[in-house]
Amino acid sequence: MHMVNSFDPAGEVRLDGAAAALLSRRQRVLGAPYRLFYEKPVKIVRGHGVFLYDDDGLDYLDAYNNVPVVGHSNPRVQSAVAQQLELVNTHTRYLTDPIVDYAEQLVGLFPSALDQVIFASTGSEAVDLALRIARHVTDGQGVIVTRHAYHGTTSAVAAISPSLGPNNPIPANVLLVDAPDSVRDDPATATEAFCKRVEDAIALFDARGIPFAGMVVDSVLSSDGLQPGPIGVLNAAIDAVRAAGGLYIADEVQSGFGRIGSHWWGFQRHELNPDLVVLGKPMGNGLPISAVVGRSELFDRFGRDVRYFNTFGGNPVSIAAAQAVLDELVSRELLASSIEVGGLLQHEIEALTASDAGVAEVRSAGMFLGIEFVDDRASRRPDPARALRVVNAMRNDRILISASGRYDNVLKIRPPLVFGVEHAPRLLEGLDRALRV
Amino acid sequence: MHMVNSFDPAGEVRLDGAAAALLSRRQRVLGAPYRLFYEKPVKIVRGHGVFLYDDDGLDYLDAYNNVPVVGHSNPRVQSAVAQQLELVNTHTRYLTDPIVDYAEQLVGLFPSALDQVIFASTGSEAVDLALRIARHVTDGQGVIVTRHAYHGTTSAVAAISPSLGPNNPIPANVLLVDAPDSVRDDPATATEAFCKRVEDAIALFDARGIPFAGMVVDSVLSSDGLQPGPIGVLNAAIDAVRAAGGLYIADEVQSGFGRIGSHWWGFQRHELNPDLVVLGKPMGNGLPISAVVGRSELFDRFGRDVRYFNTFGGNPVSIAAAQAVLDELVSRELLASSIEVGGLLQHEIEALTASDAGVAEVRSAGMFLGIEFVDDRASRRPDPARALRVVNAMRNDRILISASGRYDNVLKIRPPLVFGVEHAPRLLEGLDRALRV
Repeated sequence: MHMVNSFDPAGEVRLDGAAAALLSRRQRVLGAPYRLFYEKPVKIVRGHGVFLYDDDGLDYLDAYNNVPVVGHSNPRVQSAVAQQLELVNTHTRYLTDPIVDYAEQLVGLFPSALDQVIFASTGSEAVDLALRIARHVTDGQGVIVTRHAYHGTTSAVAAISPSLGPNNPIPANVLLVDAPDSVRDDPATATEAFCKRVEDAIALFDARGIPFAGMVVDSVLSSDGLQPGPIGVLNAAIDAVRAAGGLYIADEVQSGFGRIGSHWWGFQRHELNPDLVVLGKPMGNGLPISAVVGRSELFDRFGRDVRYFNTFGGNPVSIAAAQAVLDELVSRELLASSIEVGGLLQHEIEALTASDAGVAEVRSAGMFLGIEFVDDRASRRPDPARALRVVNAMRNDRILISASGRYDNVLKIRPPLVFGVEHAPRLLEGLDRALRV
Repeated sequence: MHMVNSFDPAGEVRLDGAAAALLSRRQRVLGAPYRLFYEKPVKIVRGHGVFLYDDDGLDYLDAYNNVPVVGHSNPRVQSAVAQQLELVNTHTRYLTDPIVDYAEQLVGLFPSALDQVIFASTGSEAVDLALRIARHVTDGQGVIVTRHAYHGTTSAVAAISPSLGPNNPIPANVLLVDAPDSVRDDPATATEAFCKRVEDAIALFDARGIPFAGMVVDSVLSSDGLQPGPIGVLNAAIDAVRAAGGLYIADEVQSGFGRIGSHWWGFQRHELNPDLVVLGKPMGNGLPISAVVGRSELFDRFGRDVRYFNTFGGNPVSIAAAQAVLDELVSRELLASSIEVGGLLQHEIEALTASDAGVAEVRSAGMFLGIEFVDDRASRRPDPARALRVVNAMRNDRILISASGRYDNVLKIRPPLVFGVEHAPRLLEGLDRALRV
């Protein structure tokens, strides 16, 4: 079982003192599925804004975590959660105001055809629910995803998450297509080539006698190595999905809530019109909450036929956190900031790496940046080892990022959206040093 | 799509004023899957201990909700969540103390063979993970559940939740067996009859060529109508599951965390030894958190082969809530209280209904009580209409309970565990009135 950027307990790096003792207790009681980041894991005791702090009081610049989108220990989120916890926390079988207020505001951020929402607690639950709805209303089973997609952890969602590796079985009703790859594609034909791969998959379902349900796409293709562009590259394929009677499910767990800056949602950047949209991670700044936003006729059909209830879904405390996140994103103009700071970082990192033959591309959408390493720009052979070296060198410099992608060779820089221009120098200087390791 | 005790928006009862306006907005934005309890839904704005309050300031005695196990708006939970939110909320790829401290305490409440834990956010996620692990380590697919089981909402878990009704497909790799039924079984043969049904299911999987993975059982069989006893009734069947190479997964989402009073977990009451145990609802008093507790060799095998990560699973804020719940359960001696108060209620309700020919049985395990209605004690024909009448009469008396069971004819009385002897009179007097409606 391979995982990029994971601590190897049997490796050379040893923790010492309190961290070693904690690690040993953790391994005893939490066991094998729990893996830590970095050659030398980080112990976190406190956070504030874009900084995390270890138990020596040392600060780490967080350029990785997208969940605390409005900053670690955000005061507005704290206060909203505390107030609601003092009032009441319950479920949606009773009438309560906050869920309706929030749902209206949230749905108001979507194209008018997407007029209803169902809340859940995690991105995995929301993707799973979107799959259930899609399969129910289409009477189909076949789902297409990209070759290195990650959509979550439930049985049905792991089955559409091929990036989980060779021991994670992909059933016959799931087909994989290579995602667009801005380093290796011919830009002139990338759109039609992607569309052709999707059409071939639809034809294969047909040949196998598996009725088609639809396609799930992360709007910035994060786990395929962050492929935000070119704009429109997905659209012909989505048209083919629709023409074959399938639904288009936009996974906005990574790209949603203003990360891309130009829009609230990644699908808007491509001017796409999803049937169902899945929201997660940053939605409650860490309080578990997720959602499926979609067309009411789909929810009507599913809701009429199948009893669905989610105990924690839309609970007033998680809703209070989500409301505070929305208020912060708007009042602090964090979408505009995402464009400004993301653009600055893109520009500066391009300058920093212009003469580095091992950097194939610097790409971004707002505050989601990727740097792809190759042996050299001619061969474009992936260089995951360098990505890992940079990640660990930066960690040792107390700057947190990670790596991902089909070849594990793409740096993933995805800070909380309160990361400002004032934080850029530390990231850029650290990156500059790490690139020379 | 049938749901017991649900508001019918097209029915005769109309809400008025602010509640009607809220309902109409809710229906527009939340849509069909969202169903409300009661002929006349309740609007909740505040809660405290065992009471919920509507927007007229009227109090409702909560004898239904098991999630707020240590009471609505519990101060210790509030303060623990507020403190942790001020410190930091992050994920398990960094070392943090609280998850390890809590995991050790939690695992310490289990038999020593169950030595590790994996955290998730909802009961559904935890059941789904337990299924993934069971299928992975047994290389099997076939799962047995009871005929009216409810285990959760993901695709894989809905597939083992036949109580979701006829439009919720049960695949060929899931087989249903009638649960024990203390009203209709011959007590002399109930244990072996249940075992025989499970053995027949195992044989059918064999005949179908579907390798067996195991059985999931709610330790008090809540959705089958609450079937807590007789003690040992499940054990021969579980032995048969084990003998056939299957795993036994105990679903403790309903029965866990002291509800049954005599033990922390329902499986202990039967002296059973599960391979995996699923925890949920009351674990964080409403903050989303759930877990799978199990044998480390199973987690090792799964964790070694498959990359598993859950963004919100074990986040420090949910862990802080769970720690506060555990501390409250222990320091307020709520298991002992569950025995005392549950025993009192059982005794008083038996006395109240002794001469009522429509009450087939009053049964309980600690603070989970069921009252089963029939046409008469000879025919034992279920009387769901009366159960519904009683539920709605009590709601109009501002006492919250519900109904469940294979025939929708069993009252479900399942208050927060801070429900004390001082709250019993209002429940009993309300029940007395409702039984005469």
